[in-house]
Amino acid sequence: MASAVAPPTAGAGRRIVVAVDEGDESTYALTWCLANVVSPAGGDTLVLVHARRPRPVYAAIDSSGYMMTSDVLASVERHAHAVSAAAVDKAKRLCAEHPHVKVETLVESGDPRDVICDAADKVGADLLVMGSHGYGFIQRAFLGSVSNHCAQNCKCPVLIVKRPKE
Amino acid sequence: MASAVAPPTAGAGRRIVVAVDEGDESTYALTWCLANVVSPAGGDTLVLVHARRPRPVYAAIDSSGYMMTSDVLASVERHAHAVSAAAVDKAKRLCAEHPHVKVETLVESGDPRDVICDAADKVGADLLVMGSHGYGFIQRAFLGSVSNHCAQNCKCPVLIVKRPKE
Repeated sequence: MASAVAPPTAGAGRRIVVAVDEGDESTYALTWCLANVVSPAGGDTLVLVHARRPRPVYAAIDSSGYMMTSDVLASVERHAHAVSAAAVDKAKRLCAEHPHVKVETLVESGDPRDVICDAADKVGADLLVMGSHGYGFIQRAFLGSVSNHCAQNCKCPVLIVKRPKE
Repeated sequence: MASAVAPPTAGAGRRIVVAVDEGDESTYALTWCLANVVSPAGGDTLVLVHARRPRPVYAAIDSSGYMMTSDVLASVERHAHAVSAAAVDKAKRLCAEHPHVKVETLVESGDPRDVICDAADKVGADLLVMGSHGYGFIQRAFLGSVSNHCAQNCKCPVLIVKRPKE
């Protein structure tokens, strides 16, 4: 064996970070991880990480150029919070079906690429699990693939799960 | 649960493809997979896939422009075969320490990106495991990252394992 560093072992206190968003692919990635990676004997901790989108700067001006009122901005903000909370709640409900797994959550505002990589570093992840898409077509076109970025930049192993087409 | 497709389950006859080359990162990826993904209860099959580099066209002419003799070409070919065989043998020895895992091997000539993705499709892989590099700096510069390509193009989940620096 060429490497002097021993890998972690299933169930021996591994910390598995799962990137969670409101999409079906993220849900499938979490389900796949629970069925295939998490030790059925217990001992693993799942850290559900969600990147809340920061309020974009242009949100203060609507498409016709008028300033939005603070009421409208507050409503946009409330909606974003509700979407985030729903995504994290759904993930926690899925985890609750596996009582042998400890679950933690971490929600941060920012670019999902940075939030996810930083979270993996911060919690000392043994593995990062994520869907291959997530965060929508438009954002992907501007940001590049979140999963590609994480696969290249995170220090831990990265598992990219695609939702089957059928 | 949003997805109608149920993911495979640990130990229930999963087919896990591991990309094998002569590098340490590939060895670490296989070790990581054996310790963290393969079910200790048995039932999984590891398919070790190795892409043998095709003999490059320019090999017939050496740097000073002289044709190489068929003896030299045969010797280059023998060396490539020996490197391939050593990589696969090393991987099989690592697997032999886990007698509950069934092991198959698949060696094909060609661009590693195509060989690995095609193999994953052909064997109906439930998971593809690979190192993040492999295949050398020069080839990576020309071909792009093999793992990036597979993460984008393989239909199954892809686990990219980096060897820790320490």
